[in-house]
Amino acid sequence: MTTHPYTSLENRFRRIGALHEAQGILHWDMAVMMPSGAASGRAEQLSEISLVVHEIMNDAETADLLAAAEADPPTDAHERANLFEMRRKHVHATAVEADLVAALTKASSDCEMCWRDARPANDFAAVSGKLENLLMLVREQATAKSEALSCASYEALMDQYEPGIRESDIDGLFDDLLGFLPGVLEKVLERQARGAAPVIPEGPFPVGAQRALAEEFMKRLGFDFDRGRLDVSLHPFCGGVPGDVRITTRYSEDDFAHSLMGVLHETGHALYEANLPEKWRLQPAGQARGMAMHESQSLLIEMQLCRGSEFLEFAAPLMREAFGVDAAAWRSDNLAALYRRVKPDFIRVDADEVTYPFHVILRYRLEKALVAGDLSISELPAAWNAGMEKLLGIRPPDDRHGCLQDIHWFSGSFGYFPTYTMGALAAAQIFAAIRRDNPGLTGAISQGDFSPITGWCAENIHTRASFASTDEILAEATGQPLGTAAFRDHLEARYLA
Amino acid sequence: MTTHPYTSLENRFRRIGALHEAQGILHWDMAVMMPSGAASGRAEQLSEISLVVHEIMNDAETADLLAAAEADPPTDAHERANLFEMRRKHVHATAVEADLVAALTKASSDCEMCWRDARPANDFAAVSGKLENLLMLVREQATAKSEALSCASYEALMDQYEPGIRESDIDGLFDDLLGFLPGVLEKVLERQARGAAPVIPEGPFPVGAQRALAEEFMKRLGFDFDRGRLDVSLHPFCGGVPGDVRITTRYSEDDFAHSLMGVLHETGHALYEANLPEKWRLQPAGQARGMAMHESQSLLIEMQLCRGSEFLEFAAPLMREAFGVDAAAWRSDNLAALYRRVKPDFIRVDADEVTYPFHVILRYRLEKALVAGDLSISELPAAWNAGMEKLLGIRPPDDRHGCLQDIHWFSGSFGYFPTYTMGALAAAQIFAAIRRDNPGLTGAISQGDFSPITGWCAENIHTRASFASTDEILAEATGQPLGTAAFRDHLEARYLA
Repeated sequence: MTTHPYTSLENRFRRIGALHEAQGILHWDMAVMMPSGAASGRAEQLSEISLVVHEIMNDAETADLLAAAEADPPTDAHERANLFEMRRKHVHATAVEADLVAALTKASSDCEMCWRDARPANDFAAVSGKLENLLMLVREQATAKSEALSCASYEALMDQYEPGIRESDIDGLFDDLLGFLPGVLEKVLERQARGAAPVIPEGPFPVGAQRALAEEFMKRLGFDFDRGRLDVSLHPFCGGVPGDVRITTRYSEDDFAHSLMGVLHETGHALYEANLPEKWRLQPAGQARGMAMHESQSLLIEMQLCRGSEFLEFAAPLMREAFGVDAAAWRSDNLAALYRRVKPDFIRVDADEVTYPFHVILRYRLEKALVAGDLSISELPAAWNAGMEKLLGIRPPDDRHGCLQDIHWFSGSFGYFPTYTMGALAAAQIFAAIRRDNPGLTGAISQGDFSPITGWCAENIHTRASFASTDEILAEATGQPLGTAAFRDHLEARYLA
Repeated sequence: MTTHPYTSLENRFRRIGALHEAQGILHWDMAVMMPSGAASGRAEQLSEISLVVHEIMNDAETADLLAAAEADPPTDAHERANLFEMRRKHVHATAVEADLVAALTKASSDCEMCWRDARPANDFAAVSGKLENLLMLVREQATAKSEALSCASYEALMDQYEPGIRESDIDGLFDDLLGFLPGVLEKVLERQARGAAPVIPEGPFPVGAQRALAEEFMKRLGFDFDRGRLDVSLHPFCGGVPGDVRITTRYSEDDFAHSLMGVLHETGHALYEANLPEKWRLQPAGQARGMAMHESQSLLIEMQLCRGSEFLEFAAPLMREAFGVDAAAWRSDNLAALYRRVKPDFIRVDADEVTYPFHVILRYRLEKALVAGDLSISELPAAWNAGMEKLLGIRPPDDRHGCLQDIHWFSGSFGYFPTYTMGALAAAQIFAAIRRDNPGLTGAISQGDFSPITGWCAENIHTRASFASTDEILAEATGQPLGTAAFRDHLEARYLA
């Protein structure tokens, strides 16, 4: 009896999946546990595992098996979807020559290390040479992948994070947004200016109490501490592996909301990972669909649910209790005003949900021009500042508040930014569908019962993994492919009603 | 230009070394951080890495390279030693057929899981079938390895932990021990009975204070927290990797000494790993010499140094200060009497240094007979109890206090036990040599300056890694191969002077 090529491929990708999981834990450890002196050894461990994966992918037999399996595809639809994803992974892994991969790894690492000093020093010139070198290699990578994927160069870069996405998709969404968002923003700011400023709760907020409250909300959202952890790291993230999802935060005794909202955001990511189908755990189609869908899940929890009035009605007494105070600051309407403050400002990661898309649109325009060669690195700071002024009417005082603020480009990640706003749009669309499907939702949320939301997502998003495209999953779940209407409705209902 | 076979081998073993390091961190995480539900996924990640190592080892080209390098060995003595260790690793990795390796892995895991319940339930019958099955496979493994190594079956098992060791070596050491140890024990017990019982310091001992004190001693011993960690786990161990050494302990508020002595013991292991030569980090000859030498380093710190009077003179005020009390219990002579209490008892891990060798000798005799087929599993409990009565004059009340107490056999580790006593003997011999080479040692220790000890070990033991045999390293460092004289002198000086 001979083994079907698809079955042999499943075994190869299962091996790759297990090795990627090992890397997932090692990466988490690096950010959360590893002592400072162990960095170079860890880099060696991780790169050795990457090399093994590279060898399995680039083995001639893997290519032969893929061709044979595609010539005689499995009858099962899930297996066919998995084969499709295997091919996609294979294209990404083999499109670029080993020399270029090595050069990219080195240039990314060099540039990122340099950026870590250049940002606080507000010294774009110190990093611009390394960024230029990195961009040159990224362009080569984009060209190679665009040929293998039959798409435009910039699309090939986006495809690494959001499979199958096209510039025309993004252009359509962003044009729609620019059609109404400036007007919405103007009205929100006017309205906000007419009201009283919210009262800021006074700390200190003890770390132990913050952690206990975060865990309480995580548990209520369905986070399983037998299959995950909450820890501390410099830059909060959701890591680990699907059966062992590990989120991190950073506590400040002066401000509990920043950490708490971060935890809720990462919990959204974590629930997605935790609910991926166990049976397909190590297979390509068993992974989360892409970064847009992933961001939709974090923003669904943080922005749609937890900054919503119903949630804050439920949460306000728990917050009061956790921090042992009782004042006007802790009324849910005050918290709502506080956590939904809108203000055009320079830093993306601190932006509210109304101004956030402008930050992304600016970066999308700039990175497309950089990859196309229409904008040079030396022109970047001026182009950034001009773009910011045009989009949000504010001009960064320096590059630290401008083009130096994000790690993405300096670590070689071009094509990632659009997924943030795609995620925000999808989150609004999904939350509207959940409301539609759950008439008693408002009552459930204010009672602290989030199962209508998490259950719906598990069924309609999480367990679908990568068995369909982002738009297919969204259309089946919400009735529409990704659009801007629900986001507009959401902003109008929350900020202008 | 062609690459020398030795250079190609270095690259292969560097890869294996990096993969083993990745496993080291994943194992640490499993014991210290991993949530309970993630066990099966972790097993899959670890076994995938093992499979990759297995494939590199069993690749025909690895065997060809070894033969070619041995035919034209490198001129550098360190490289020749490394080649020798490569061959040893290769023999162990390839002597046993893949089917038997898989069967052993499964049988070990099954038997160990069963033992975890059988021990607290005091139910040897519940696990004896699985142990019998496992022993049968261990015998097959021993036969295969003994042919490849040209030694006896039991020696082939010991060789996994203590390379090159022979039964005649162990028999010689243990016969010597049995020549004086019963007499020493009798005299120690008589003398002890004549004195007053030590006063036991009263708790509770807050965990935070215990941890701070442990860290203080670790730092004074030279543990580098930029290249290592101290954490909590159920079973204390020293894990991680040489540039990132991670030790664990377990705190009880009722008894700080158990945790503290455990930390000091693991610190001894940690210093060995931390001082291995960085240049050879991922090569076979760059690893610690064997389990006897490793245990010598932990016992040197715990038993020779930290239970010694000079150390306790230095430590007693720090302990008093840490736990905020001031009483007769905290006098260094009382602590010395307390931490050196000798008592024949049933449990090896709780045994004092005088009775410990009897526990090891019993296990050595029994496991040799089991591997040879001279003793059956069904006869084991009775043989254990009879042996205990003969050696220490006490009879276990049940199997939980007898043959069920240790994990080793139930997890497939036969041939490990002798290294504990070899380590105790080596520790005494090394400490005597350090005293010989450092006339001012007593004063330094009571001042809290341990650098004469740690510096001596770094130079004479740690940085020697596996570039010579255990006996060669010991002979060069102390003037003698491993023997019992220094241990006898130590016991007489500490307990009978």
